[in-house]
Amino acid sequence: MVLHCSALEHNIAVMARYCADHGLLLAPHGKTTMAPQIFAAQIEAGAWGMTAATAGQAQVMRAFGAGRIVIANEVVDPGALRWVARELDADPGLELLALVDSVAAVERMDRVLGLEGARRRLDVLVELGVPGRRAGQRGAAGAREVAAAAVRARHLRLAGLECFEGVAGSRLDADALVGLVVAVAADLDGAFETDEITVSAGGSVYFDRLGPLLACDLSRPSRVLARSGCYVTHDHGLYAGASPLAHALRPALELWGEVLSRPEPGLAIVNARRRDAPYDSGLPVPLRRRDGSPLAGWTTSELNDQHAFLRGDGPPLGVGDLVGFGISHPCTAFDKWRVIPVVDDDLRVVSAIRTFF
Amino acid sequence: MVLHCSALEHNIAVMARYCADHGLLLAPHGKTTMAPQIFAAQIEAGAWGMTAATAGQAQVMRAFGAGRIVIANEVVDPGALRWVARELDADPGLELLALVDSVAAVERMDRVLGLEGARRRLDVLVELGVPGRRAGQRGAAGAREVAAAAVRARHLRLAGLECFEGVAGSRLDADALVGLVVAVAADLDGAFETDEITVSAGGSVYFDRLGPLLACDLSRPSRVLARSGCYVTHDHGLYAGASPLAHALRPALELWGEVLSRPEPGLAIVNARRRDAPYDSGLPVPLRRRDGSPLAGWTTSELNDQHAFLRGDGPPLGVGDLVGFGISHPCTAFDKWRVIPVVDDDLRVVSAIRTFF
Repeated sequence: MVLHCSALEHNIAVMARYCADHGLLLAPHGKTTMAPQIFAAQIEAGAWGMTAATAGQAQVMRAFGAGRIVIANEVVDPGALRWVARELDADPGLELLALVDSVAAVERMDRVLGLEGARRRLDVLVELGVPGRRAGQRGAAGAREVAAAAVRARHLRLAGLECFEGVAGSRLDADALVGLVVAVAADLDGAFETDEITVSAGGSVYFDRLGPLLACDLSRPSRVLARSGCYVTHDHGLYAGASPLAHALRPALELWGEVLSRPEPGLAIVNARRRDAPYDSGLPVPLRRRDGSPLAGWTTSELNDQHAFLRGDGPPLGVGDLVGFGISHPCTAFDKWRVIPVVDDDLRVVSAIRTFF
Repeated sequence: MVLHCSALEHNIAVMARYCADHGLLLAPHGKTTMAPQIFAAQIEAGAWGMTAATAGQAQVMRAFGAGRIVIANEVVDPGALRWVARELDADPGLELLALVDSVAAVERMDRVLGLEGARRRLDVLVELGVPGRRAGQRGAAGAREVAAAAVRARHLRLAGLECFEGVAGSRLDADALVGLVVAVAADLDGAFETDEITVSAGGSVYFDRLGPLLACDLSRPSRVLARSGCYVTHDHGLYAGASPLAHALRPALELWGEVLSRPEPGLAIVNARRRDAPYDSGLPVPLRRRDGSPLAGWTTSELNDQHAFLRGDGPPLGVGDLVGFGISHPCTAFDKWRVIPVVDDDLRVVSAIRTFF
């Protein structure tokens, strides 16, 4: 796997400009890459802070100097909460936010933070969700109860609202979830405990639908944090089809494999593997040979632990030929590698990035 | 993820006994675990050597002292062949075998090994395969051509035959492939260049169908190498259903996750993730709570990058509860972890194993 330097830099700039133009603060989801070198480039380009999926990811971000982190998940593990308490107390400048979606979680967090002797309160966002889908309160009444519990909790501070509109099955469902956040924000207006109210949404498919969040009519200042992660490398599959910026972003990851066997006409076996590339949202897409010539006519029909099956009637492929593949879904690409070479447009290695999964 | 010590030791002993009882030499597939500590336990229990899927995996095995390795794959990469040449020449005691399934691959290997100044010849097994499936010659005529090329090659030695009967779609197809190996072995009898002829088959589903390989009627001594890898931890999914030793092996891997959210009746969101457990051949199976009580009635309906969806009407699950899961397909379990704690039957950590993917 190689990371194309020019595409990476381009994408970081495109998304920074998009967020600036649309009044969004960007907290790119670090779970995609878990590469502190990329985090640094994102912050350098103007990102407000980082998003983590777990306290463990937040620890990596802190170790590399992040000062603002949204843990876009419930944090109920005592060990994780102990770390949160210590980290907040050790650095008065640290901005750390986590999600809550149940009274049970709020009370558990409050109890553990109390036992740990936490002095600073942890800022929490009430998570809203979609019926039948992942975490998050499904409606205003439940959200009100969770918010009230957070206000009661001595070690938490009600800081805002959150949703992951990416779990919605359609643009319409995403709009409905964003609309629910707006309604609940108005409903809870007087309850928020921070000077500035945070409203946040995540995902790389519907970040063009966050406009209503900016128009929340609240009695205190508010900010909207967008948390897209996959824009940073884009892809040749899932996001090539679904990103609102598909016309502007460039795929930055390329997997290279070698033809090991041509056992039958129309079948090439390549050493590209389940251990090299994502296979949860589309298989690797054969793009080109080492000389740059395109490989249209070949498709990956199957990925085994140690082999890819290319089928088709494209240009000749001989044993030993190198095949460059595009990938689908960056989040399950980076986690397969500890080091990824960064290359220029001529495939010369110019640096390397390390991942910390 | 934890590895149950007693189940691991039990499985290693069960497979060692099975192979000894059936006249098979065992070269366990190391790609499953890539854990040299487990390799050492397998060798200690009597395994003949190790199987690797790539030269890179063989390098790890060599670094940890393996003296006999089958690379159960075509090796056509110049860098890999350079390593092979140097390693063979540096250690006259090293037994290294690789597969060939085309004249093109044989000629390429021979050319590269020649350029590298290889002094010892590399032993190769002609791979046989199934029409429509992975690598390997589909019939006797093609195998004969590949074997003749290997005999002509100055830097290779025709050492035997190989198949991966696991690619077969059924027991009947596996039997047919094994039968093809037997027929080709008889056909090539006079051509093999080693004192002992190696016949090898891999896989964890049909290793009880290798009997005909033992009965090859050849004019020189022969040995049969079985290459199963997944027996070592077994599982609660794919191999629980398909292993010929399913009645004797015990699942050794267990994934622990924590309930983060109970957003709806019948739905629990757990922090068990695509990054923690296999999802290519079945999702994690909820087994029990931390107190050991069973979790029948819950099933994993979906695995996201950072969350598992448990659905059902099983025993109550509250926010913060721990859930132990069984897994399906060990090969994509180990590669998600750099260190896996080893536990006793009371879940006390007694050691840890490192993986080298």
